[in-house]
Amino acid sequence: MSYILVTGGAGYIGSHTVIELIKNNYKVVIVDNLVNSSYDAVARIEFIVKQSIPFFNVDIRDHNELSKVFQSYPISGVIHFAALKAVGESTKIPLDYYDNNINGTINLLNVMKKHQVKTIVFSSSATVYGDATRFPNMIPIPEHCPNDPTNPYGKTKYVIEQILKDLYQLDKFWRTAILRYFNPMGAHPSGLIGEDPLGIPNNLLPYLAQVAIGRREKLSVFGNDYNSHDGTPIRDYIHVVDLARGHIAALDYLKKIDSNSGLYREWNLGTGKGSTVFDVYNAFCKAVGRELPYEVAPRRDGDVLDLTANPTRANTELNWKAKLTIEDACKDLWNWTTANPFGFKIDNYTWSKFADYENRLHTIKINDFEVSVINYGAAIQNISINGQRLVNGFTNPEDYKLSNNPLFGATVGRYANRISKGEFSLDGKAFKLPTNDGINTSHGGEKGFNKKNWLGPVAQRIDDKKVSLEFLLVDEDGSNGFPAEVETIVKYVVGESGLEIEFEATISESSQHDATPINLTNHTYFNLDNSSSINGTQLKLSTSDYLAADKSNPQLPSGEFLSIESTDVTLTQDVSFDSCFVVDKLASTLDSRDKPYKTLVKASKPDLPITLEVSSTEPAFQLYTGDFTNVKDFKSRSGFCVEAARFTNAINHKNWASQVTLHRGEIYGSKIKYSFQN
Amino acid sequence: MSYILVTGGAGYIGSHTVIELIKNNYKVVIVDNLVNSSYDAVARIEFIVKQSIPFFNVDIRDHNELSKVFQSYPISGVIHFAALKAVGESTKIPLDYYDNNINGTINLLNVMKKHQVKTIVFSSSATVYGDATRFPNMIPIPEHCPNDPTNPYGKTKYVIEQILKDLYQLDKFWRTAILRYFNPMGAHPSGLIGEDPLGIPNNLLPYLAQVAIGRREKLSVFGNDYNSHDGTPIRDYIHVVDLARGHIAALDYLKKIDSNSGLYREWNLGTGKGSTVFDVYNAFCKAVGRELPYEVAPRRDGDVLDLTANPTRANTELNWKAKLTIEDACKDLWNWTTANPFGFKIDNYTWSKFADYENRLHTIKINDFEVSVINYGAAIQNISINGQRLVNGFTNPEDYKLSNNPLFGATVGRYANRISKGEFSLDGKAFKLPTNDGINTSHGGEKGFNKKNWLGPVAQRIDDKKVSLEFLLVDEDGSNGFPAEVETIVKYVVGESGLEIEFEATISESSQHDATPINLTNHTYFNLDNSSSINGTQLKLSTSDYLAADKSNPQLPSGEFLSIESTDVTLTQDVSFDSCFVVDKLASTLDSRDKPYKTLVKASKPDLPITLEVSSTEPAFQLYTGDFTNVKDFKSRSGFCVEAARFTNAINHKNWASQVTLHRGEIYGSKIKYSFQN
Repeated sequence: MSYILVTGGAGYIGSHTVIELIKNNYKVVIVDNLVNSSYDAVARIEFIVKQSIPFFNVDIRDHNELSKVFQSYPISGVIHFAALKAVGESTKIPLDYYDNNINGTINLLNVMKKHQVKTIVFSSSATVYGDATRFPNMIPIPEHCPNDPTNPYGKTKYVIEQILKDLYQLDKFWRTAILRYFNPMGAHPSGLIGEDPLGIPNNLLPYLAQVAIGRREKLSVFGNDYNSHDGTPIRDYIHVVDLARGHIAALDYLKKIDSNSGLYREWNLGTGKGSTVFDVYNAFCKAVGRELPYEVAPRRDGDVLDLTANPTRANTELNWKAKLTIEDACKDLWNWTTANPFGFKIDNYTWSKFADYENRLHTIKINDFEVSVINYGAAIQNISINGQRLVNGFTNPEDYKLSNNPLFGATVGRYANRISKGEFSLDGKAFKLPTNDGINTSHGGEKGFNKKNWLGPVAQRIDDKKVSLEFLLVDEDGSNGFPAEVETIVKYVVGESGLEIEFEATISESSQHDATPINLTNHTYFNLDNSSSINGTQLKLSTSDYLAADKSNPQLPSGEFLSIESTDVTLTQDVSFDSCFVVDKLASTLDSRDKPYKTLVKASKPDLPITLEVSSTEPAFQLYTGDFTNVKDFKSRSGFCVEAARFTNAINHKNWASQVTLHRGEIYGSKIKYSFQN
Repeated sequence: MSYILVTGGAGYIGSHTVIELIKNNYKVVIVDNLVNSSYDAVARIEFIVKQSIPFFNVDIRDHNELSKVFQSYPISGVIHFAALKAVGESTKIPLDYYDNNINGTINLLNVMKKHQVKTIVFSSSATVYGDATRFPNMIPIPEHCPNDPTNPYGKTKYVIEQILKDLYQLDKFWRTAILRYFNPMGAHPSGLIGEDPLGIPNNLLPYLAQVAIGRREKLSVFGNDYNSHDGTPIRDYIHVVDLARGHIAALDYLKKIDSNSGLYREWNLGTGKGSTVFDVYNAFCKAVGRELPYEVAPRRDGDVLDLTANPTRANTELNWKAKLTIEDACKDLWNWTTANPFGFKIDNYTWSKFADYENRLHTIKINDFEVSVINYGAAIQNISINGQRLVNGFTNPEDYKLSNNPLFGATVGRYANRISKGEFSLDGKAFKLPTNDGINTSHGGEKGFNKKNWLGPVAQRIDDKKVSLEFLLVDEDGSNGFPAEVETIVKYVVGESGLEIEFEATISESSQHDATPINLTNHTYFNLDNSSSINGTQLKLSTSDYLAADKSNPQLPSGEFLSIESTDVTLTQDVSFDSCFVVDKLASTLDSRDKPYKTLVKASKPDLPITLEVSSTEPAFQLYTGDFTNVKDFKSRSGFCVEAARFTNAINHKNWASQVTLHRGEIYGSKIKYSFQN
């Protein structure tokens, strides 16, 4: 299976194109130097397409690093976006533009040549035409319109086209598609990715969007005395998703070329329909639902009446046509803008590489309350107040992979807690899992959810004092012996003094099997004073009921319930728990999220101001005093767990099985809350 | 004093421009990566301009190395030649062209900016116009002719012009001269530098030259059916020296610009007079003196009838005009070609850096006879037969600077041998030199010719078995206390079994004083079997006469002559010489070169096949048995010298003074020959 290398794949048009590539079953490698883009875009792409995408933080001018990418993946073609792209800026730092864009491309082409990769789709621009109105009969603009770029940005695009043309002249096996964009606008309908311009936006739509959310005072309309229906100049605005689709059309076209020939060809990507500034303004105001402030300013130098594309060549040859309207684009842009008022930048949220880009450390800090989560196991790596740790976690990524890592902070699945002998049946069909806990299978087996890098997260601001992080895992059909491919989302919502964890799981459309047992929880080890032991910690349980042990298999329930004498428990050396307490004996629902939160356990320690309350929508919780924890600096009883979930081994008890049996089309859900008083 | 940086200064046009710059009192620093040029060009430039020129073997794409150059010299402007320049080649390796030319220039401009250097003369080309005949009224071609280059080479020039234009748009303090060359031809009238194309020449003249000397069979004339007086196409051929002068005119023009403004301007450099291929062919045949073979071939794609320049703008604004004719160019080209049939490449001659470019090790090897000379002291570093050393020399450059280096192989001057008490008078005026040998001054004093890096050499093939090396030293007025600035040339001519050394010295035009004492020799220490001692060596002297010692100053002659008993001398431990033998008691001439060679000494060693004969046109020779030699591995009597020259202290003996008194307009000359039998 070969890959398409997308340079600048974290950028505005690049990120949307990556999504379309994957929708069209291409494999993608992304190279981006992130100087004008954010890795968060890549994380969100992965979340959207539900798969991980190889990413290299490499500058295309770096010959050695770029060569390594070509050595690491079998690359069959390149879509080349990487470039500086602001017309105004290009007149202020032209050398940077020539260096980044031209030198960068020359280096890319040298590396491609070295690796015999001769298929390229190049991200060019209508700016290569310059002022097409100077020529007779060149509006709408056809590809044969003379080129005369009027600014360094446009010149770099023009020069690169020339270089590609020379290469093809020399070696007719090159397959080169030049795509000349008109005015991209809009965002992905998911609202997860979109344009995130640095500084003051150059373009109409991003500027309008910032006016709409109050980042800018008002729009300036440069000239309303043009010869158009409303006096403002006419441009060809194209939805970024349509534009992205154009790249797939071009790539498909190049693929079809007879193997003993090549191609060099330019295509305009535009709608062919011109819109005035006011047309766009009105469409966006409609999407926002109110009039936005604007003023009419004098014409800008170099602006002309009409620069509409003639896209006939792309329509006929590439069998591609823009489908979306400026109304669609405005709706999607507003959707993106309201969800991400400051683009990919989220207040109170930061991340850093933990092991690598696939496993990052995500930290949300609200006042003095801080929570850190890693991609590996979507695990809570730290919860702290005033920098004081409250949970067990490693600082070295490798430690999480230790076989004796007791699932510190991890998301546990596909099936939390134990399944008797690893056996169960679904809809009359019997299954047998590999066992990993004596004769039983525990916490999903050897390579459960806690041992995988989760996709994402999508970080989003909820309000000034709340940020959410959503991680996604696609657990393949047959993973650890479980039937059905399952998509699980874990959402952390961090506030001032606590966090909520929400689980949601469904069976993928593409799954072979239609059902699976499922039981999800979070496996945080609490230690309220970050001491070597939890001894002395006082617990107040909300229930005295727990599942009685099965004589023949003592770690598993018989089906009976028992009670402890007192729900007030002080953890002393001789007080150990690894039992499933029950708060709703009749529980049967698969999605508990609409139930009210119930307090499960309150924890405190004498003379310690900090207290913990664990609550949940779940019917049960495993209380574990970590007696068998022994890894690195952490010894036995260095933390205790309150694992809110379903009844232990519920899949094998007919009265309980409905809690944990997920069929295609159904949704598994639950919520857990960790609250701290200080 | 500021410097002009010349990139590509070792190339064809660059080297000629450096000469014109220095003629116009500019200081020059040369940067060249030598991929398509030769350092020998720089050595020859230094020989022509009689001064050393800082040279850096740096690729302009190397940011750090290039920055160092700007840090090392105060650079006020740049003339930028460095580029790949073959149109045909550019269509075969376009990426290399874009990388070298465009990236190189971007890097140069970044470094210039960093060092606040904003004056640049750019070497552009008429190729930016492409086929100007397509446009109405554009022949002769004016600067406003539309640009439409038709090959990668031309495109790189076009793009660089655009980059420079953008820089000026951004920062109006830049002073940018774009010089668009038409068809350079010819060579420097000295015959020392010229075009030295790699591989098959692309251009008419170099190709014709190679036909003329038999390197190519015949010229191909592409098309004789054009609408010209003889059917061949018309171009604008300009003498490379005129072209070089154009750069000085542009630089002067930029210098004159008011300090609070700048400029971006293009100028054609052409004659304005078109010549056909046959016009040039005939002119060159005339220069060669015979008809050269040619054939008429079909027209080449892209060739057009007439591409003549309109140079009016340069004529009027730069006050520059091409003065030389194609006849001049053909004469100079033929002169260069006959003297350098293979350009800077000389059979039997090689060089390598010894200390650096200023002090190189030059080796001539004819069959099994090999001579090596270094720039430092223009000293003979080695003479060998079949790899067997015959003279003393160091292999480490630093050793030559040791205070106890006994002038191994060195050229000795300004005054070889001793001057009594360092005192002499010239034309009634008394002079006193610093003494360095007891009460006397010996071999020119502390920093004589042997302690200086000589310029050049100019290496030239004389015939299959003879190569010459010419070194130049300009010894300033007052150097070591001597009056008058003296220009000395030492020429080594190496043949199959020996070498001749020719000395020539004159007083510079620019000298303050009109006269100086002078006495030149070579100070080679012979050791025929490369053993630790010369003891056992047998000498046959051609004379028994030597200069009697002055009682009061025993190392100096009284004026009387004495004789030794036998002219057959065997050098045993107790046989030492440091005496001046005389072969012409009545000698009085300043230039002995027209006299016949006289044998001075024959040397041999029992059972050793190799014998030496030293002969000269000189009247005397100092025989020295190296009794005080003691440096590094060389001990006393490790070599003997036969220093052919004038009488010791002749300047202070009225009968002898004419041998060593050089007046302005006179020429000092002498010849020495070292012949070996084997």
